[in-house]
Amino acid sequence: MSKKIEVCLTPALIGLYDIEQSIVVVIDILRATSSITYGIDNGAEAIIPVANVDDCLNYSDKGFLLAAERNGEVVVGYDFGNSPFSYTKEKVAGKTIVLTTTNGTKALHLANKRAYQVVIGSFLNLDALCNYLESQNKNVLLLCAGWKDQFNLEDTLFAGAVVNKLRKNFKHFDDSSVAAEDLYLLAKEDLRKYLHKSSHSHRLAQLNIEEDVVFCLQLNICKAIPVLDGERLIALNPKAF
Amino acid sequence: MSKKIEVCLTPALIGLYDIEQSIVVVIDILRATSSITYGIDNGAEAIIPVANVDDCLNYSDKGFLLAAERNGEVVVGYDFGNSPFSYTKEKVAGKTIVLTTTNGTKALHLANKRAYQVVIGSFLNLDALCNYLESQNKNVLLLCAGWKDQFNLEDTLFAGAVVNKLRKNFKHFDDSSVAAEDLYLLAKEDLRKYLHKSSHSHRLAQLNIEEDVVFCLQLNICKAIPVLDGERLIALNPKAF
Repeated sequence: MSKKIEVCLTPALIGLYDIEQSIVVVIDILRATSSITYGIDNGAEAIIPVANVDDCLNYSDKGFLLAAERNGEVVVGYDFGNSPFSYTKEKVAGKTIVLTTTNGTKALHLANKRAYQVVIGSFLNLDALCNYLESQNKNVLLLCAGWKDQFNLEDTLFAGAVVNKLRKNFKHFDDSSVAAEDLYLLAKEDLRKYLHKSSHSHRLAQLNIEEDVVFCLQLNICKAIPVLDGERLIALNPKAF
Repeated sequence: MSKKIEVCLTPALIGLYDIEQSIVVVIDILRATSSITYGIDNGAEAIIPVANVDDCLNYSDKGFLLAAERNGEVVVGYDFGNSPFSYTKEKVAGKTIVLTTTNGTKALHLANKRAYQVVIGSFLNLDALCNYLESQNKNVLLLCAGWKDQFNLEDTLFAGAVVNKLRKNFKHFDDSSVAAEDLYLLAKEDLRKYLHKSSHSHRLAQLNIEEDVVFCLQLNICKAIPVLDGERLIALNPKAF
């Protein structure tokens, strides 16, 4: 089988892709999928992505940690938001976290409806993710969560990094894969500097999360690949591949 | 006023943009907006974009030239399709042409519903277009027609060329503008060579339109800026700016 890799630049375009037999990688670098990767890598039992703050509240009496963010800020009264620094071993090992985010959760739910499998990608687990995707006999769709259905640079750069690593063993690149890879190659020597061009980055700068941004751009500090199992994100069993 | 320039990467995303007070530039480089530019520049009285071949047939008894293309090929029985070589002075001067195309017409109609003004962009009229956009006190949305609602490289490269020319006098670049400009800067020394990477280009190669592609990548051989006037594309009156 000649495996195909494609990049869906925003969740608004996912209807254009045939993903029933594909592994979909959901990408929300700043910061949902970075925090999810870090949390699962640090031993969280599960992370449950929910669509909105009200859904999150439904879990408040189950002993779960509740994480809610809207427009980049922690919702008042919640345990924490999207900052990866909340997802340390001390805080999350053995715990289940209920997470609502602006863009990442939406992308996850859209993919979950139709895909063969949905996994989580971030710079933190880039190599582990690529090794897994190479080992599977499936097409791959890289789904950028974007910002309110708009294209964003950081998710596209990560998609480009995956295309760049997988190009030897995959075929049928679409135009968005070509663009994402070229942007990644342009940016890779200093991702943070490149992202200073981004409107999203300017917005994030206003939210005072520079430390989070730097954290989320680290390469390969995690081995875990979070995978959707029903409604829960759990660690993909490494023995399975 | 601080003017804003944004890039909408596919017509499927146009609902995200507030265009009521914007000039929308519709871009379908291979080949609709290149042929429209060339035809209007060569003295066509008007070009009427229609959504499908049946709509085109409604004009068959009005003495108009009929141009219909589906999936890159002339529809049997029509005067011509989308090739710019059909839009020479000899063929189109003083004539009205009814044109249906796969992607460009759809983008035009979507923009026409809401925008302050809809104009046509192509490499053929790049400088004339940019001079016009600079002279107006309006925001600009560069609308890539794409391919069946998917992102494509050639339309994005042209959008990037416009951003690059206008960046001095416009502000509020979105992430897609940044990406489009960087891709253009990467490709500009040899656009044709760069497009060989494109899936669309491979598809076009199969259709045997290499000469059209080379033609459509020429810079500034036209002065005309086609503008939508009701349902018709006509030459923008140069005295108006």
